[in-house]
Amino acid sequence: MDDALKAELLACALALANAARPETLRYFRSDTLETDDKGTQGFDPVTVADRNAEAAMRATLGHLRPNDAIFGEEFGESVGTTGLTWVLDPIDGTRGYIAGTPTWGVLIAVGDDSGPLLGIIDQPYIGERFVGGLGQRWRDGPGGFLGLRCRPPRPLSEAILFSTFPEVGTKDDLAAFRRVADRARLVRYGMDCYAYALVATGQVDLVIEAGLAAYDIQAPIAVIEAAGGIVTDWQGGPAHRGGRVIAAANAEIHAEAIALLQSGPA
Amino acid sequence: MDDALKAELLACALALANAARPETLRYFRSDTLETDDKGTQGFDPVTVADRNAEAAMRATLGHLRPNDAIFGEEFGESVGTTGLTWVLDPIDGTRGYIAGTPTWGVLIAVGDDSGPLLGIIDQPYIGERFVGGLGQRWRDGPGGFLGLRCRPPRPLSEAILFSTFPEVGTKDDLAAFRRVADRARLVRYGMDCYAYALVATGQVDLVIEAGLAAYDIQAPIAVIEAAGGIVTDWQGGPAHRGGRVIAAANAEIHAEAIALLQSGPA
Repeated sequence: MDDALKAELLACALALANAARPETLRYFRSDTLETDDKGTQGFDPVTVADRNAEAAMRATLGHLRPNDAIFGEEFGESVGTTGLTWVLDPIDGTRGYIAGTPTWGVLIAVGDDSGPLLGIIDQPYIGERFVGGLGQRWRDGPGGFLGLRCRPPRPLSEAILFSTFPEVGTKDDLAAFRRVADRARLVRYGMDCYAYALVATGQVDLVIEAGLAAYDIQAPIAVIEAAGGIVTDWQGGPAHRGGRVIAAANAEIHAEAIALLQSGPA
Repeated sequence: MDDALKAELLACALALANAARPETLRYFRSDTLETDDKGTQGFDPVTVADRNAEAAMRATLGHLRPNDAIFGEEFGESVGTTGLTWVLDPIDGTRGYIAGTPTWGVLIAVGDDSGPLLGIIDQPYIGERFVGGLGQRWRDGPGGFLGLRCRPPRPLSEAILFSTFPEVGTKDDLAAFRRVADRARLVRYGMDCYAYALVATGQVDLVIEAGLAAYDIQAPIAVIEAAGGIVTDWQGGPAHRGGRVIAAANAEIHAEAIALLQSGPA
């Protein structure tokens, strides 16, 4: 890819994040937030903000990159002709959004069949943006502009592990997660996509989750890989289609955690 | 208490929060953060930032209110002569702080033997401050200045419940917590003191925790009560000495949750 196209894609991705911010913030902590259940089981809130933010990003793509494909959480797939696809999650962490936490985010990725090339994790309330891929690896927000760099290796017994919920995947998934969690120094929950940003900033060693969609993980993959980390499925294969995902700060902690995920019951 | 003293205490509390901010931020997400274990069991990090922030607040009190007593997490008790005590937790949520999350906070309360009269929950990274008591009930931060108001009653089946960890207190404590959690619409973890701020902003119905210290809960009590909520122990008695605490948006959800906490095993 030539530098002009890289610059165009970066500018477009930043424009999408800018377009989504006011739409997500308009209803954040609003008394009038409307929600309904998307699924027939469990609690899967969809907000007006979610739809408006994706619509704003799609309108922006219509101006800037009309021939790229789009895959968005809310409005599905739109075909393109360039071989590039924008993968959009207008509000990752809708439960956190509804509860008023500042840990949900707008996820934007652009890539091809091999996976994401450039990703943004944007947290509009804090005003914090994490960008990785196509030569970029930086965050901007409180405290100013900083480079991203995953933390150096340390044993799992000294590591920090995040997952959004303590109930991870199926019963077998949960058992595998617990094999890692029980050996980590610290396990925390509830951060939504912000946990992946914390891997890229060098604060967190591991995020392990199950049941993800492609739009949940493509932007985190690009940001974390740009910062020197690794994101795979629990078998060490590609994670950009979602499912069971491990994000690791470095190859050493990734290997240690993968071995435990795969070790199975005694 | 006359209005001049109320204004003086408010000004002092805001000055303390201002003094703590740069001290907590200096080491936040720093590569050089030093930690050590305060307790002999488990993981109880104490950071240089924790000590520096409390020292900065104590120095400010030495100038502004030298005759008040102080009870701080890091440096313990200092006697006073006014009948007023400042209760300080320089970094509530040190585990979250070490992991880089934006949900820890500086907790500042001033009160007498009956409990806190004025409290501040300050989140320096977001730049968000929640103030309640002595006629104050407001937050300032992203989006500007807003009044605080807890949300109106709704059944537990429609309610949002927070707790910092899924492992709540003793085995019996956890069973009691689960009786409430299993009936709530949504249960989230990992927010530290920010969860109490979300009760005061009308986003969250309940926070239930165990094993708190007085300095963990006095500021949240003042902020939530000013916003119309209720904070008690699990028996409905005073919570300002810590222990097992329930913070509720209103009397109705408080009563529903307390009944479940007290119902015991079948």
